[in-house]
Amino acid sequence: MKIYLAGPDVFLPDAIEVGRRKADICARYGLTGLYPLDNAIDRAAPDVSLIIFKGNEAMMHTADAIIANLTPFRGAGADPGTVYELGYMAGRGKLCLGYSNDPAIYADRLRRIADVKPLDERLVDAEGLTVEDFGLPDNLMLIHALDLHGCPLVVPTQAPGDLWHDLTAFEACVRLAAERSRS
Amino acid sequence: MKIYLAGPDVFLPDAIEVGRRKADICARYGLTGLYPLDNAIDRAAPDVSLIIFKGNEAMMHTADAIIANLTPFRGAGADPGTVYELGYMAGRGKLCLGYSNDPAIYADRLRRIADVKPLDERLVDAEGLTVEDFGLPDNLMLIHALDLHGCPLVVPTQAPGDLWHDLTAFEACVRLAAERSRS
Repeated sequence: MKIYLAGPDVFLPDAIEVGRRKADICARYGLTGLYPLDNAIDRAAPDVSLIIFKGNEAMMHTADAIIANLTPFRGAGADPGTVYELGYMAGRGKLCLGYSNDPAIYADRLRRIADVKPLDERLVDAEGLTVEDFGLPDNLMLIHALDLHGCPLVVPTQAPGDLWHDLTAFEACVRLAAERSRS
Repeated sequence: MKIYLAGPDVFLPDAIEVGRRKADICARYGLTGLYPLDNAIDRAAPDVSLIIFKGNEAMMHTADAIIANLTPFRGAGADPGTVYELGYMAGRGKLCLGYSNDPAIYADRLRRIADVKPLDERLVDAEGLTVEDFGLPDNLMLIHALDLHGCPLVVPTQAPGDLWHDLTAFEACVRLAAERSRS
């Protein structure tokens, strides 16, 4: 089974090393991890962003499954680039797995970083937009996509000290994928 | 042509009215707008979030195209729920259109709300994660998905006064969809 390894990990200073660690974990379970090309491209090339897009899309076509790192990125929710890829793989009927290293409920997490208050039986942000309050760790579309197209979101009981380098929850996803590949 | 009307519009206090306005614009161009069910559901029902997910997914299966409102939501990037739906529709080979009422480049927008600085030929945020700096208005996966699976992101020359209710860029997407449906 080939697994597309999606996540804002590509933005880490040690992105290539993290990709190697993830691919090594996959290999230990007899699976092949495919890591996005963002950092393997000559950044001086013209149309570099289009080259990355086409490379990542081709890699998703090759993969049988996705493991998406949905750890909150620059705010209360998951990285939109990763979420796009989760949706793309779900749309193509591939096996969808994901993890977040922050187990908090979305509304509680948003409360920690923004002004959130109750109004007319809704919970709203400073702009007056409703805050989803279903007791889920992120937007319902992502969470239930995993429930229905793969396995429920994997979260640790407690957030690890290093949100971006702890791969325990990632490895739990790999284990789930390996079980599916044998069944 | 049936168009799934994705966006954080469902979180507005006047979400239902905004959905009606969008569907009316579609009708004027001979198209059918399908508006997500988030606000048409009894919120006291058990499993309400799962009912919304299943309803929205069924609606996406019915639709031939998506118009995604990618206006930045609670931060520098688009709403992850909307982005999931854009990915899902792209994965299923549907026509993908999108707009953002904020024409700024992603890196410039992030600079306005967060600590961003150059480091070792990269641009990084306060956590040391690379900031995409390709001169695009959002993550490259969303932007090029529109380029390659539909029409380039529609943005106004200048952000309108009311980011959440101005439907000029939305109508431009509807016009593009109508042209495609005739060709």
